[in-house]
Amino acid sequence: MAERLVVIGGDAAGMSAASQARRRRPAEELSIVAFERGRFTSYSACGIPYWVGGLVDDRDDLIARPPEVFRDDYEIDVRTRHEVVDIDLDRREVVAVALDEGRREVREPFDQLVYATGAVPVQPPWATSGVTGVFGVQTLDDGDALHAWLDRDPAPKRAVVVGGGYIGVEMAEAMVNRGLAVTLVERGPQPMSTVDPDMGALVTDRLSGLGIDVRTGLAVTGLDHRDGVVAAVVTDSEPIPADIVVLGLGIKPNTTLARTARLPLGPTGGVRVDLRMRVVGLPGVWAAGDCVESVHRVSGQPVHIPLGTHANKQGRVAGINIGGGYATFPGVIGTAVTRVCDLEVARTGLLSTEADAAGFSFVTATVESTNRAGYFPGADFMTIKLLAERGTGRLLGAQIVGKSEAAKRIDALAVALWNNMTVEEMVGLDLGYAPPYAPVWDPVLIAARKAVDALGVK
Amino acid sequence: MAERLVVIGGDAAGMSAASQARRRRPAEELSIVAFERGRFTSYSACGIPYWVGGLVDDRDDLIARPPEVFRDDYEIDVRTRHEVVDIDLDRREVVAVALDEGRREVREPFDQLVYATGAVPVQPPWATSGVTGVFGVQTLDDGDALHAWLDRDPAPKRAVVVGGGYIGVEMAEAMVNRGLAVTLVERGPQPMSTVDPDMGALVTDRLSGLGIDVRTGLAVTGLDHRDGVVAAVVTDSEPIPADIVVLGLGIKPNTTLARTARLPLGPTGGVRVDLRMRVVGLPGVWAAGDCVESVHRVSGQPVHIPLGTHANKQGRVAGINIGGGYATFPGVIGTAVTRVCDLEVARTGLLSTEADAAGFSFVTATVESTNRAGYFPGADFMTIKLLAERGTGRLLGAQIVGKSEAAKRIDALAVALWNNMTVEEMVGLDLGYAPPYAPVWDPVLIAARKAVDALGVK
Repeated sequence: MAERLVVIGGDAAGMSAASQARRRRPAEELSIVAFERGRFTSYSACGIPYWVGGLVDDRDDLIARPPEVFRDDYEIDVRTRHEVVDIDLDRREVVAVALDEGRREVREPFDQLVYATGAVPVQPPWATSGVTGVFGVQTLDDGDALHAWLDRDPAPKRAVVVGGGYIGVEMAEAMVNRGLAVTLVERGPQPMSTVDPDMGALVTDRLSGLGIDVRTGLAVTGLDHRDGVVAAVVTDSEPIPADIVVLGLGIKPNTTLARTARLPLGPTGGVRVDLRMRVVGLPGVWAAGDCVESVHRVSGQPVHIPLGTHANKQGRVAGINIGGGYATFPGVIGTAVTRVCDLEVARTGLLSTEADAAGFSFVTATVESTNRAGYFPGADFMTIKLLAERGTGRLLGAQIVGKSEAAKRIDALAVALWNNMTVEEMVGLDLGYAPPYAPVWDPVLIAARKAVDALGVK
Repeated sequence: MAERLVVIGGDAAGMSAASQARRRRPAEELSIVAFERGRFTSYSACGIPYWVGGLVDDRDDLIARPPEVFRDDYEIDVRTRHEVVDIDLDRREVVAVALDEGRREVREPFDQLVYATGAVPVQPPWATSGVTGVFGVQTLDDGDALHAWLDRDPAPKRAVVVGGGYIGVEMAEAMVNRGLAVTLVERGPQPMSTVDPDMGALVTDRLSGLGIDVRTGLAVTGLDHRDGVVAAVVTDSEPIPADIVVLGLGIKPNTTLARTARLPLGPTGGVRVDLRMRVVGLPGVWAAGDCVESVHRVSGQPVHIPLGTHANKQGRVAGINIGGGYATFPGVIGTAVTRVCDLEVARTGLLSTEADAAGFSFVTATVESTNRAGYFPGADFMTIKLLAERGTGRLLGAQIVGKSEAAKRIDALAVALWNNMTVEEMVGLDLGYAPPYAPVWDPVLIAARKAVDALGVK
């Protein structure tokens, strides 16, 4: 009889694991069943803000591979609208209910199990009070609901986005693109706390320039409603009128089921896995994607960084191992890029606060340069900030804010940091130079030079 | 008395050395004299094709720092229109002639000498026969002469570019932009031999699409002229009519003076220097820029790669050392980027022929992917080719041809190669992901995956 693989969660991590396992082992050796609560598989949650904002026309564009492709081309038995409600590790079976069939119960035995339930939005109590017009941005169903609400007649005119992280900022811009008056409420001192305050200030300026009313140091405490429909966001200062509220408070590992089944959870709340994506202490059980925690290669600490790129890699690693190969997920260094209107924002490694918390002694260096030779048409400014460890000179972190061709320069910095390069070594790096692409000293190299100076190296 | 530094050559390498030395040692400690044959200092020769093509308006835009700035802000005695004609290593002085003063002779003693004479265009005998209308693209004076020729009345209508390297291809495009009918003559099987033939074919297609008549496997043997003005390029097949001929046959180290003074030259024809940019065997004599050879970090062989980015770094290193600091130039890995019309072309490490020549056993992997998430507006295709060593899996080389946001992806590959990463390690790299910047698997990572497959790693 074939070995049986059951996958819980049909998005990036789960379906990557399933396809990689299939690639190595045919159906007669390995049967694969994948349960997905929603209607879709392998979609880009990261694309939802652009779809809501109108940059991407069609929801289906966000779907990398629909269930039929997995069924027909990969012989994977994908069961959408099936919610797994229990994992019985003793009997080695999962219990699911078919949501469109009166919650009919299905029991599926497994030899190998992949837990890939993803993440859920952080929702304060007021967000789950039953008032309508309040939206997360996590699933395509969320996106559908948002679209339907925006298309109401009369159309909503005032949007309040709560939380100023990546998703909050992207959704604020999307709401502006849809013609709404937008207020962005952030509890902390400024939005984009994913970069240092001095770099984030550049982003805040741009958000304000776009007409977004940025309110910082303000906590949302509740909602006002009219007949169950949201009318205002209540804060610890005055209320803010709202016809639609978007939640951008971050996401956390979806571990409801993991807790019930006693999968081990780490300090970040994510499932604990080893380098091969095995759930620690549970043979034959794997986990991947937004529900797990990873190791940060600079701090050495566990972190929860929910990104599609990690989910895909982790799923691939699990699938290769399940398929009889050998692969490891080497951890993360916190690289992230985002676009805020015409600004590109990027980071890798540790922020200043994170480097402090991890006990590093470090210097910072900030430079302004251009994406192309200064004389070349389309030359735009960018700001780069580096963190380098005192004593060793090792690069600890990098941040970029620029106008164009800026964000992806973080990749060169990320690879340098990944390899524990010192800023002095980085000055010698042989990066691509030609007037349409860089000044003769690429901004990355100029930043490294300034960091060398800051270290006082002679 | 102050120590005396004399610099021969007032472009990137020479003036970087001079400014870095000054930064560390004030004028009362170190006097600096810089001789420059031309009228300009620190200009971007790489920008000349864009200036000739009309993308850059003004010649002066290409000048990073004019002589006055060095004189006033750096206390560097810059003497333009001075040609150094001899280096007397025994008496430790250089002999220069003032070109605008009837070749008046100047003798300047030195304690430290920087040889930074740059490169000269490769010129076959027919190019120096005195026929007018034939141009190199090496100095701003060349650019001035080209502009003047293009502005003649009647204006030249037919351009022949000889040589299909970076400069040849860039100049062919510049001539198209100026409205000329352009023929590009390449002796080899195709232009852009700076990438593998399969990648170069993508560029040739684009050149032809632009209306450039690309003639390959054709050797130029002479010129036809009418009253001393070029009329046609004579080849080993039929002649090609020409009102202007542009030389793109590459450049070689300018070592006329070095030979006379018996500076040591390496197998590439460049001056031999150590890691600190000291001329081998000659204390107090330094060399930097297009006149020196470098070590290729992958092949371990000496190479001559004349690029402004290396010249600046090498000059900086020499200047720091002269100034009493410590710095090294760690060698090159052959990174280069160029733009051909709307195509971006990039490379790092070894080409297939180079890897063969260096004795590597390797696999190649070529993938096509997109610069952004496939569903994101502006998503364009790019092709990436990787070379990985059999056995170790080490990345040996990478090439990219794409439409936008493609070329500078070479930087992440260059840093990976610089650090001797294997393609398997590269699959785990934490690169920036967001829909406006990359698909969830960046093209670089997709290429690494394919290379892992090609190596047969399980």
